[in-house]
Amino acid sequence: MKLAIGDKNYSSWSMRPWLLLTHFGIPFDEVLIELDEPGTKAAILQYSASGKVPCLMPDDGFPVWDSLAIAETLAERFPKHALWPRDANARARARSVSAEMHSGFFALRNAMPMNIRLTRPGVGTAPDVLSDIARIDAIWRECLAASGGPFLFGEFSIADAMYAPVVMRFNSFQPKLSPEAGAYARRVTALPAVAAWIAAARSETHIVADDELDE
Amino acid sequence: MKLAIGDKNYSSWSMRPWLLLTHFGIPFDEVLIELDEPGTKAAILQYSASGKVPCLMPDDGFPVWDSLAIAETLAERFPKHALWPRDANARARARSVSAEMHSGFFALRNAMPMNIRLTRPGVGTAPDVLSDIARIDAIWRECLAASGGPFLFGEFSIADAMYAPVVMRFNSFQPKLSPEAGAYARRVTALPAVAAWIAAARSETHIVADDELDE
Repeated sequence: MKLAIGDKNYSSWSMRPWLLLTHFGIPFDEVLIELDEPGTKAAILQYSASGKVPCLMPDDGFPVWDSLAIAETLAERFPKHALWPRDANARARARSVSAEMHSGFFALRNAMPMNIRLTRPGVGTAPDVLSDIARIDAIWRECLAASGGPFLFGEFSIADAMYAPVVMRFNSFQPKLSPEAGAYARRVTALPAVAAWIAAARSETHIVADDELDE
Repeated sequence: MKLAIGDKNYSSWSMRPWLLLTHFGIPFDEVLIELDEPGTKAAILQYSASGKVPCLMPDDGFPVWDSLAIAETLAERFPKHALWPRDANARARARSVSAEMHSGFFALRNAMPMNIRLTRPGVGTAPDVLSDIARIDAIWRECLAASGGPFLFGEFSIADAMYAPVVMRFNSFQPKLSPEAGAYARRVTALPAVAAWIAAARSETHIVADDELDE
């Protein structure tokens, strides 16, 4: 099985399936394609008809693209791992908060691009960004209170992988969070699979200018 | 089981789970909340913590929100219906094209709001809109060629429900489509569940000014 991803420093969508495969110990070969270069689109199209990363190439099936579609497909192919919570109600809620992330929070995503090497405390405080942050903080608090933690639905699941890039954005931009949300963000950051992704991102030298927030 | 939805004329996200429940004959009670009114947010928050429709309220479980999360939850709860294609590879591809719709095509969605009562041929031809339309046309052609039709993966599935609001936009704005895509759009429009939704939308009188494209 191969997984095509973008730069680890920048590719928030790629981070999610990579974390799931790595955390659950599912063997895969990584194909890293540097984003925002003249040859990027052609390189991705070799793997994914959508022209976007991430894309999963199972050895025995068609390519699967989009972070959430890959996550659902992995959950189905590897039922011995609890990629989704085992409880049906918790799973329905995990799907709801994962899909809410997948289709929303544009103000946050535009104002605070994922750039793991960047530190810009205090940037990105427009009202719509703060509203997105407040909603994410509330989701995290509600899920942690219901499950008892340490992750959103107890053990690390697809829902945490979906929000891991948001944790990276919060590490860079350091918005004010509730104590519970801040502690959760630190636990995600410290998870071995996340720490490995961060270390690799820090060792990359390729630059995507649009995500550097230079004036 | 209850499903909270917005106006049928405008609520593209609501249309999807409503079509799935209706097409597959799964009994449910509809709760329609008019969008973009002073009391809309409070009315939705009674059902969905995300403040958004659609929201599914099973009689025996927690609310599930977001069209794709509801679709996955229904697929899991009603395995006797083929909400997703039965073949694993087809299902992975159906999830990919559904997720691509769920998280993308912003240019199209902004330029061509779903407004079933509106007819505005020729509006919305900016290059990024045309690029979205070309990608959707290609997805439809590829899926129909692989499955043999009449729907994207043979019989009507979640993937068709995800793209049904796009068909409504195309009916209003009438962009140029390939013959295969145009024929598919007509088949979706004629499906009894879709026809029932359209008839209800046409009989509504509530107006959401932002989606009327008035100058």
